[in-house]
Amino acid sequence: MAASERVRIGIVGVGRMGRRHAENLALRVPGAQLVAACSPLTEELDWARDTLGVRGLYKDYHELLADVDVDAVFLVTPNALHPAQIIAALKAGRHVFCEKPLSLVTDECLAVEAEAARHPQLKVMIGFVRRFDASYQDAQKSIAAGAIGRPFMVRSETCDQNDPSGFFVRFAPSSGGIFVDMSVHDIDLARWLLGSPRALRVFSAGTVAVHEGLRACGDVDNGIAICEFADGRMACFYASRTMAHGHETATEIVGTDGRLTVGRDGRLNQVEIADVHGIRTLTTPTFYERFADAFLREEMHFVDCVRHDRTPALSLHDATEATRIGIALRTSLAERRVVELA
Amino acid sequence: MAASERVRIGIVGVGRMGRRHAENLALRVPGAQLVAACSPLTEELDWARDTLGVRGLYKDYHELLADVDVDAVFLVTPNALHPAQIIAALKAGRHVFCEKPLSLVTDECLAVEAEAARHPQLKVMIGFVRRFDASYQDAQKSIAAGAIGRPFMVRSETCDQNDPSGFFVRFAPSSGGIFVDMSVHDIDLARWLLGSPRALRVFSAGTVAVHEGLRACGDVDNGIAICEFADGRMACFYASRTMAHGHETATEIVGTDGRLTVGRDGRLNQVEIADVHGIRTLTTPTFYERFADAFLREEMHFVDCVRHDRTPALSLHDATEATRIGIALRTSLAERRVVELA
Amino acid sequence: MAASERVRIGIVGVGRMGRRHAENLALRVPGAQLVAACSPLTEELDWARDTLGVRGLYKDYHELLADVDVDAVFLVTPNALHPAQIIAALKAGRHVFCEKPLSLVTDECLAVEAEAARHPQLKVMIGFVRRFDASYQDAQKSIAAGAIGRPFMVRSETCDQNDPSGFFVRFAPSSGGIFVDMSVHDIDLARWLLGSPRALRVFSAGTVAVHEGLRACGDVDNGIAICEFADGRMACFYASRTMAHGHETATEIVGTDGRLTVGRDGRLNQVEIADVHGIRTLTTPTFYERFADAFLREEMHFVDCVRHDRTPALSLHDATEATRIGIALRTSLAERRVVELA
Amino acid sequence: MAASERVRIGIVGVGRMGRRHAENLALRVPGAQLVAACSPLTEELDWARDTLGVRGLYKDYHELLADVDVDAVFLVTPNALHPAQIIAALKAGRHVFCEKPLSLVTDECLAVEAEAARHPQLKVMIGFVRRFDASYQDAQKSIAAGAIGRPFMVRSETCDQNDPSGFFVRFAPSSGGIFVDMSVHDIDLARWLLGSPRALRVFSAGTVAVHEGLRACGDVDNGIAICEFADGRMACFYASRTMAHGHETATEIVGTDGRLTVGRDGRLNQVEIADVHGIRTLTTPTFYERFADAFLREEMHFVDCVRHDRTPALSLHDATEATRIGIALRTSLAERRVVELA
Repeated sequence: MAASERVRIGIVGVGRMGRRHAENLALRVPGAQLVAACSPLTEELDWARDTLGVRGLYKDYHELLADVDVDAVFLVTPNALHPAQIIAALKAGRHVFCEKPLSLVTDECLAVEAEAARHPQLKVMIGFVRRFDASYQDAQKSIAAGAIGRPFMVRSETCDQNDPSGFFVRFAPSSGGIFVDMSVHDIDLARWLLGSPRALRVFSAGTVAVHEGLRACGDVDNGIAICEFADGRMACFYASRTMAHGHETATEIVGTDGRLTVGRDGRLNQVEIADVHGIRTLTTPTFYERFADAFLREEMHFVDCVRHDRTPALSLHDATEATRIGIALRTSLAERRVVELA
Repeated sequence: MAASERVRIGIVGVGRMGRRHAENLALRVPGAQLVAACSPLTEELDWARDTLGVRGLYKDYHELLADVDVDAVFLVTPNALHPAQIIAALKAGRHVFCEKPLSLVTDECLAVEAEAARHPQLKVMIGFVRRFDASYQDAQKSIAAGAIGRPFMVRSETCDQNDPSGFFVRFAPSSGGIFVDMSVHDIDLARWLLGSPRALRVFSAGTVAVHEGLRACGDVDNGIAICEFADGRMACFYASRTMAHGHETATEIVGTDGRLTVGRDGRLNQVEIADVHGIRTLTTPTFYERFADAFLREEMHFVDCVRHDRTPALSLHDATEATRIGIALRTSLAERRVVELA
Repeated sequence: MAASERVRIGIVGVGRMGRRHAENLALRVPGAQLVAACSPLTEELDWARDTLGVRGLYKDYHELLADVDVDAVFLVTPNALHPAQIIAALKAGRHVFCEKPLSLVTDECLAVEAEAARHPQLKVMIGFVRRFDASYQDAQKSIAAGAIGRPFMVRSETCDQNDPSGFFVRFAPSSGGIFVDMSVHDIDLARWLLGSPRALRVFSAGTVAVHEGLRACGDVDNGIAICEFADGRMACFYASRTMAHGHETATEIVGTDGRLTVGRDGRLNQVEIADVHGIRTLTTPTFYERFADAFLREEMHFVDCVRHDRTPALSLHDATEATRIGIALRTSLAERRVVELA
Repeated sequence: MAASERVRIGIVGVGRMGRRHAENLALRVPGAQLVAACSPLTEELDWARDTLGVRGLYKDYHELLADVDVDAVFLVTPNALHPAQIIAALKAGRHVFCEKPLSLVTDECLAVEAEAARHPQLKVMIGFVRRFDASYQDAQKSIAAGAIGRPFMVRSETCDQNDPSGFFVRFAPSSGGIFVDMSVHDIDLARWLLGSPRALRVFSAGTVAVHEGLRACGDVDNGIAICEFADGRMACFYASRTMAHGHETATEIVGTDGRLTVGRDGRLNQVEIADVHGIRTLTTPTFYERFADAFLREEMHFVDCVRHDRTPALSLHDATEATRIGIALRTSLAERRVVELA
């Protein structure tokens, strides 16, 4: 498309995260135009029309794909639907942004990659939002500039504040499990920050600390994992759904000359409180407050890539690798054994 | 004006800060339209035209005021010009946003207030940007909600990273001095966070630690001050232009049940570095990185007030008081005595 | 005395702080021997005898001074008694350690100095304990080594946790007021860290935030102060008796090339808690936990000076100057004016 | 022995750590008396005699054991010698304090336990010094009091500052490897803080980041590990010998209601520096500065147990378990597989 034109976007999935993407695309992303929305729920489509002035409203995804005014789709749909929806969009000639993870099954990742290879003119990007966070970008640039020597280890955690209602438990069976759903972010960070090394083997362990309902589908609410990469690189992950203090995404990168830590304490803002509880800071309640800016930058990046025919900063293969490692961790957890990846 | 219309704005002063305001008004503030610019420098007007598509380009402020397409002006001009420019804009029927401080002379503040009182339909707001920072707003709301009991003291500092070139020294004579130019922010914060108490007396001290050129105009590069308010409230200020590590704006509010601290360390981002220098964080190089979001929120607030005929969150009288206290601190520094304000 | 001999010490005052000194002198200070105790209270003398095996037990200070087995006295008595007690000890040929402040009246400080000058062989040291804290010593050495360039400002605070019972109010009339009783530590630090500059003038302000009983004697529970020294050096002090979170002694030293901060947050230990209150650390409840090691090092220093005939690290004149500045701050508070010191 | 008597101690091994124990026992541990020392090196014995006044000087361990004046031995010897030396001491009727680890071979641990069982009147304690650190004790008490609900995970790291000379490499073959030598501390902490759960299986990975000489003996300079315990408890360890900033021992304990973190940043003291490098703190250069107080408390605890016939806070079985897990981690590293422990 001509760089002067705006990218006309259809949002698919208008739930909590879908609305955030939709609002940004409609109001805050230069060069983007939100022209269509797809949801099985009437009230979600009403919201898109009434709040954001979206014209093309569809209950069926294939109808949206048939809308000739749509240049690109944003998929904010259940994880299990991602591969088929991406492939359908590509076949319809649409650029695709899709929320992480790419899939719950490695073969599907490869099928998406194969389809994308048939449409080299179309952009496909999976939403590993942390790569667009200013602090993570600063860390990555510092590392690339040699600030910590040769990086060889990443320790990264994704911890959500506990929801006592356990609402999320009902989505657990279709989430892919804690490692595919949550740690996939940390896995992608580790690969990015360590220079995309080849994964060799993984091991994981986990426990149900609070949410007994997870046992039915073999999932856990706290999991730890080790991933060995080639050339003496390695990573350690922790995912939790039961933190008391808020959401915390923290990553440590160790190199031969130093260590960087990103996001420790997940601070809500620049206020410190000294009172009868001690001296304290508050933490963002969810990942969204932590990464709100990064989501906007991610969307801007994707739209820029489409407008200016540039290659997205992260490839489909990156997404496949992160997913493949996440799935191996799930297998390790289930079978209590090392899973070889090489 | 009708709330559905956009506020047509003329920017006056297109230097470093003027460009930042101009870019936000042109690109990021919903409901704003940047239609005119005024500068004595051709290249600044060229920039406004070429980069932001500004149509009305003026070398003379009064010509800009005569432009019937201008609803409001943004004054980003030398401090000494503020009062006359505000009054002229009001007489021309324009809403006014003006950077701090309101003036360098108390009588001029009162003259501006008097003129504004003759135009109750026009909005006038001085840019005390910190009131629009998310962390300061959080602190203010917490205090208002009783989180620290009755607040009785504010300690606030504004510290700039040293510019070894001493470039700023040439502007010192027209800046109003360190307390009017820098501490006026802290003074405004203190009044805001303590519930707008009446000022009783002030004392200050200062030194030229680095920039000898300041002595010629009686200014200092580091100053400390005490301000007593009525009802046992008080404040302590520190301003410095010679910090080695970056810009730091930090404020502590002490109440009978606790203390809040805002902005300690002025952190650049969420990265921590552990290397041969120890464990460290970096600080924003200037106030702008620290308050970039606040500037945008400040502009949005002013534009909203104009569009929806609302009263700005801070009044001209607030600006007068902050200026009056700043001037008294300058007098105290010069005359080495307590200055009574009541 | 011969360096191989132990210094035989009489403790005068066996209240809370007196017992701490007594225990250290009896059990932990190499080269010291606690041989006598003086208190008007029988139970305090019983404690000294039963717990520490002290032999010489006196209700009258002059009887203790007459005990030929006493080489040195430790005065942990009400502030107003210090000068006469020091002078009496010197006249009796005893070395003297005395808790801060030296006096509540400047003339008495000078009288003590004069008496001490008549006994050059006797050691006299006032207990400015912070000079013996490992962190303050590290800061002082760094400054002396040029780590922050030329130091020109100290900001220092002494904040006690609020005692809701207000027990301390009954001692306020004899304490010398908040600046002489508390800030005298900060004043001494400022002089030490700035290279003992000559004081020029002071100003202070204060408020009764919580403890109304203080008004009767003209004291406050929160006070702030500025002290100007010669050569463009200056200091800012804050003293509070009403903190919610614990005791905090914090000092900032600003130089032309950097800033050091000592004791921020007053952390109790190395534990951090993340729970529903946020992420937090606890603060020491009183100054004693913060400075327990420093008290021991202070005692060891004094005993070493006596044993090896060395000059104590801080002089009587240092104590006089800190007291004189503290008294000037009290005057400034009472008379709401600048007090000239030069 | 009678509680009023002092424990007469023989120190075995008078190298760097041995001297520290010796000095404490001779000078700072109430109720202890350092009466003998054993070392193959004449200068080490000379030091003990000249500096600490030790009377019994032995080049042969068995001669020291034959000294009837020795009540207890402190073994600060190469790891591989520990089991035989403990057994010999017990057979000679001596109480035993031995530095960690208990052994490099699980069977030897069990042999020591068996021998100790034959001498119930003798105290045997392995030096897991962190259990005596004030912050770790505070954390343990908080957890026991329910502060974080049910604890289910420990993440603990031991990181040494890099020694560019690689001096330690020559001791690597006899150290037992990074997990037995370093992580054994973290393993013991995990067991202690999680309530001594039964270990089920482990997995580890490691790399030679800097010190190539380690490859010869199969060791690494950075290792990570997972340990699963019964009842859904688990731990994650990291050991490094290559940190740039100093020694850092940090431990995180996660429970159902909160998280405690101990020792983050390993701060040297309470000084913060703001200069051209940013805002920073320094870290202790070695574990010793971090744990100097804990070593003293550990020694006092052991001496108290001997004097008052009390059971040491940590049992030989604790030491066996920590060692057994450490050895399993070494096996996992060598064989790249999960090692089952149950």
